[in-house]
Amino acid sequence: MEIEVTQEKLSKALNNVSRIAVGRVTLPVLNNVLIRVDNKKVSLITTNLDMAVVDYLPVSDSRDGVTTVPARLLAEFVSNLPKGEKIKITAEGTKVTINAGKYSSTINGSPADDFPELPEINEETAVVFKVGADEFKNGIQSVSVASSNDLSRPALTGIYFNTFDKTLAIAATDGYRLAVRKLIKNVQSEIKVIVPATTLQEVLRAMSDNTEEVEISFNEDLVRFRLGEVEIISKLIDASFPDYQRLIPKDNDIKLELNRGELLRVSKLAALFARSVNGVIICEAKKPDTFSVKAIASELGENESTITTEVSEDGKNSFNSRFFIDAINALDEKDIVIEFSSRVAPIILRNKKNQDYTHIVMPINK
Amino acid sequence: MEIEVTQEKLSKALNNVSRIAVGRVTLPVLNNVLIRVDNKKVSLITTNLDMAVVDYLPVSDSRDGVTTVPARLLAEFVSNLPKGEKIKITAEGTKVTINAGKYSSTINGSPADDFPELPEINEETAVVFKVGADEFKNGIQSVSVASSNDLSRPALTGIYFNTFDKTLAIAATDGYRLAVRKLIKNVQSEIKVIVPATTLQEVLRAMSDNTEEVEISFNEDLVRFRLGEVEIISKLIDASFPDYQRLIPKDNDIKLELNRGELLRVSKLAALFARSVNGVIICEAKKPDTFSVKAIASELGENESTITTEVSEDGKNSFNSRFFIDAINALDEKDIVIEFSSRVAPIILRNKKNQDYTHIVMPINK
Repeated sequence: MEIEVTQEKLSKALNNVSRIAVGRVTLPVLNNVLIRVDNKKVSLITTNLDMAVVDYLPVSDSRDGVTTVPARLLAEFVSNLPKGEKIKITAEGTKVTINAGKYSSTINGSPADDFPELPEINEETAVVFKVGADEFKNGIQSVSVASSNDLSRPALTGIYFNTFDKTLAIAATDGYRLAVRKLIKNVQSEIKVIVPATTLQEVLRAMSDNTEEVEISFNEDLVRFRLGEVEIISKLIDASFPDYQRLIPKDNDIKLELNRGELLRVSKLAALFARSVNGVIICEAKKPDTFSVKAIASELGENESTITTEVSEDGKNSFNSRFFIDAINALDEKDIVIEFSSRVAPIILRNKKNQDYTHIVMPINK
Repeated sequence: MEIEVTQEKLSKALNNVSRIAVGRVTLPVLNNVLIRVDNKKVSLITTNLDMAVVDYLPVSDSRDGVTTVPARLLAEFVSNLPKGEKIKITAEGTKVTINAGKYSSTINGSPADDFPELPEINEETAVVFKVGADEFKNGIQSVSVASSNDLSRPALTGIYFNTFDKTLAIAATDGYRLAVRKLIKNVQSEIKVIVPATTLQEVLRAMSDNTEEVEISFNEDLVRFRLGEVEIISKLIDASFPDYQRLIPKDNDIKLELNRGELLRVSKLAALFARSVNGVIICEAKKPDTFSVKAIASELGENESTITTEVSEDGKNSFNSRFFIDAINALDEKDIVIEFSSRVAPIILRNKKNQDYTHIVMPINK
């Protein structure tokens, strides 16, 4: 196997694939990147068994063959070489030589036969969606904040891709809060699957400024994200996602319009005092025009801030300050709308203009 | 006690003093900042018993008195308030009220009597030096990299301020490497003391873009750094520093001129491979014009890079890659000079033009 390629191209490709190459004691070959040259087509492949990343690398010259070498070592070596340098990688058996002008290295690889088989999407039966890179990125980022790390509830560690009313929505919940966003409208296909949040983080990292579109293909138990030269293939989470639509309250009686920056500020101030009382902050609306956020920490002291806004109904409720601040940070317009109630019902937070995104946070039972 | 002050001024002062306010279980008042108003002069004071930070705060209005409140809580609260807001702090006993427009807080403080007494420099007997802010900052940064964290050898956890030949020099060593810099020339006073590296880090952090000069005053067992409104007073380390001048070799036979960026690059490349062999990299000079850096990691592979430069003597030696890279990073000119030997003698690294800074690294015994 032999390839010739510039430092910039090789370094970018290795950065894309090397992040997930983390060996296990029982399977050290997962540390490695598989470099395959097949009829002048070069692919770099890594996998952690749950997910695989493939980068198709344009090279100036090549000779067919296949080998595997430690991915991070090769990535760091190449990234430290001078930009513009021409790099030649040659494999003879498991001995891989990298030459670049005055810099040369020999790395001991492993036989390609040890590398796990990669799952493949069946192009015939796949359900395919396409979405603009920015919508995808913003959508995943704003929803994934509500996902869980608790591996004992696998459904909650993923993002739910689900169609209804010809819309593809994405949703995540950790049981205390829920975030939903309409991602693509006027879709024809139907889908209800859970994609691991870790896979989606990897997709976001692999996106570059040049990525214009993300192609998402679903099979029964697999998903593939294609962004230009990079493909990420992952298992889906085999679990059922909660029926989230019925968690969003329809009849919260207090509805307020607030400046997002101002609400963020008063919530952060209250959160400082709330630290010693498990993060409890109290939101209160008082007719005709006062909304206040406060925290009472008996030993430390207490804090209260007020915002002037039109209030037509009195009421108050308590929330976790971190979840509350996460929700405000997930919105992006200058003005936002919150809906809450003195009853045991979640608070709803939305942008004022674009209501495609909904974030709800459960109250704290006192 | 009462003060009125703008958010910007108060926030800056609290940031300066709050970093070292870390309470101990046995002395929780060390969490607090002492706010003292004495005849219209306001000072904010924190201490960790080894060191104290004092900030003299210009305020628009005040009433004499003294109190203490949790420093980090107050600092974070004030930093989250809007810029330009007028802040009023009022203390009645240990109850401290902070009012700023629509934002108000009450913080429970502690009696000022609980706060430790602060040591004071005797102005009459103090030995005083003045140095430009940039020289001070660059000097401390380039030397402190060689200091140790090993508390069992207290002398090595500090920076040695020492005068000789009418020069004030600073030096640090961890036993494996040594860094020395001439800080002030033509000084009249004499001094030989060790200042804790942690104190100097705090001085660097307290320097702002407006700091033009650092005034350093030494007493028998104390040092005070004065930078504008901020003073940092610290105990000295009571130990003897090694006689470092005799550690710098006078007769290394190989002397080379190298491009700093290029030496850094080849050292980083070798360091990647050296990881699995305790960081050992090998430097070799070969007549007439080849300098090479390599690492041999039998399992992983090996690496060698060459630099073309005039060589008048053959030889090689081994060094720890991290120490070697730290030394190159501590230099700042485009061209540098290294001096080494095949014998068991340290390598010397210096900038080519300004030779006020010397860094030496011990070789690795094979």
